[in-house]
Amino acid sequence: MSAESATDLDVVCIGNAIVDVLTQNDDETLARLGMTKGSMSLVDAETAERLYEELGPGIETSGGSAGNTAAGLASLGAKCAYIGRVRDDQLGDIFAHDIRAVGAEYTTAPATDGPPTARCLILITPDAERTMNTFLGACADLGPDDIDDGLIGRAQVTYLEGYLWDRDEAKQAFLKAARLAHAAGRKTALTLSDSFCVDRHRDSFRELISGHIDILFANEAEILSLYEVDNFDNALQLAREDCAIAALTRSEKGSVVIAGDEVHVVDAEPVSRVVDTTGAGDQYAAGFLYGYTNGDGLAQCARIGGLAAAEVISHVGPRPQESLSGLVAARLSEG
Amino acid sequence: MSAESATDLDVVCIGNAIVDVLTQNDDETLARLGMTKGSMSLVDAETAERLYEELGPGIETSGGSAGNTAAGLASLGAKCAYIGRVRDDQLGDIFAHDIRAVGAEYTTAPATDGPPTARCLILITPDAERTMNTFLGACADLGPDDIDDGLIGRAQVTYLEGYLWDRDEAKQAFLKAARLAHAAGRKTALTLSDSFCVDRHRDSFRELISGHIDILFANEAEILSLYEVDNFDNALQLAREDCAIAALTRSEKGSVVIAGDEVHVVDAEPVSRVVDTTGAGDQYAAGFLYGYTNGDGLAQCARIGGLAAAEVISHVGPRPQESLSGLVAARLSEG
Repeated sequence: MSAESATDLDVVCIGNAIVDVLTQNDDETLARLGMTKGSMSLVDAETAERLYEELGPGIETSGGSAGNTAAGLASLGAKCAYIGRVRDDQLGDIFAHDIRAVGAEYTTAPATDGPPTARCLILITPDAERTMNTFLGACADLGPDDIDDGLIGRAQVTYLEGYLWDRDEAKQAFLKAARLAHAAGRKTALTLSDSFCVDRHRDSFRELISGHIDILFANEAEILSLYEVDNFDNALQLAREDCAIAALTRSEKGSVVIAGDEVHVVDAEPVSRVVDTTGAGDQYAAGFLYGYTNGDGLAQCARIGGLAAAEVISHVGPRPQESLSGLVAARLSEG
Repeated sequence: MSAESATDLDVVCIGNAIVDVLTQNDDETLARLGMTKGSMSLVDAETAERLYEELGPGIETSGGSAGNTAAGLASLGAKCAYIGRVRDDQLGDIFAHDIRAVGAEYTTAPATDGPPTARCLILITPDAERTMNTFLGACADLGPDDIDDGLIGRAQVTYLEGYLWDRDEAKQAFLKAARLAHAAGRKTALTLSDSFCVDRHRDSFRELISGHIDILFANEAEILSLYEVDNFDNALQLAREDCAIAALTRSEKGSVVIAGDEVHVVDAEPVSRVVDTTGAGDQYAAGFLYGYTNGDGLAQCARIGGLAAAEVISHVGPRPQESLSGLVAARLSEG
């Protein structure tokens, strides 16, 4: 929480810049297109185009895990910026408009050639299930040149989305961002994003964490996968050795935060009805980092994370629908 | 786990020596006797006698919290002893017979005068609810003279039942036992027993814990009451300062064990159907202390505690119905 010099940003988030395209569809359409309901598939440009033509009118809205965290941070009142790669096309314009509209600074130059802006085609069926087809396009080509030296130095925390940890260029971009952050006396944070992601890149994730990361976010499946253990307490012991701070989320069991000698076991915020868990981890990270950059103790950070996660799972969609700053002020004043 | 000299006992349990009297009754009987279904009331000798006459044939079985723990320890294969006060009457004979029959050494001399042996009249209604009327009688008069110096020195751990921490004589007995245990290089453990119990004796419990106790057992309601805080993480931080080892049980959330720098967050053992939670804490303590006196690490102690608790809540009654040693061997070999 100490910084060598003043910062005018709390958090800069780096992630996959994806536009979500939500369309209402019936079960027959899914069957005709050969999709398994509830699944998430990566598709190529051609398939994405073909699918999009088949679908009815959609609602476009900028998404992406770190983008959702930036939206949460802005809703909490934090000053944040976003780095992510789009193409100079219509969906790229939509992404840039939306991320700026939530209040995040966004200056990554759109690519002038190469694949189009990433999109996630989301087919919502009448039973509220979501079937997703993601075309990564431009976002996966993020590289070191997209990392703005000045921007990283201005933020207390640089937050990295694990989904990007795949291609070499993106890995170099993360390492550059981490080096810049530490050179400026700032902190770095990483979310593991997905247990399949961890499976594919276990060793390099562990090197990244032990060498370059100050704050690790992971859910239970991800941390078990990272350490290849089968129970939470074993993973906890290993994370304690590896991480300066680890915030481990456990759905309805709340979260456990460890930092050297410090440990906190924080209950989940009660939710009357869980509608859609998409974005829970993104909003937990937003709440935690809001508290952290505000100088709050780690137990309070975890509690704010839990409040933000509880809001987002109470409705459809991965970004807050009510003002998180108002919600947090109201709930924390209750004691 | 270290001992200055060899011990031939693992644990000596000190508690309220109570005989449970289980009777089947209908709702009309409860109404006629003016009882609130599901409640637990303390009654005097006269009321206990009068109620007993009103009730049908009963099943007598020795109970009491630390007695249940001794039964669990014996079922796990630990060598244990019990100290608790009965009167030289029929129920006293039943208590002594049962506690010895489970395999615990029991040599406390029965009182030759004063109130009769404690009993808990349990009215079971057809809906499986239990309504309890406890007459403490002889057990609450336990005093320093009942503490056998030699017995304490022979056991690795002296385990104290918080329910007894009420009358001065019993408090003196606890302090004597703790002093003897430490003089012999042994460990002491305490269960807080009940949050009302903690409410009544908060300050003296805290003095007892910080001055004389090595291992504290408490459930969530009890530890919140002890430290007068309203969330688990706050209680955890305070227990970390006060206790060499604290094992904090949280029902379906499992348990958290803290010991200096060490911390373990251990999941509850899955149970297909919770039938009767009576004795869950007693059996957790049995499992934990079995592991502890066996030289196991604290995470393993918590896991065995969870296994023993899961067995006892799967059936009616506060003592194990299947061999805990077999159960633990089978489950731990699964990994």
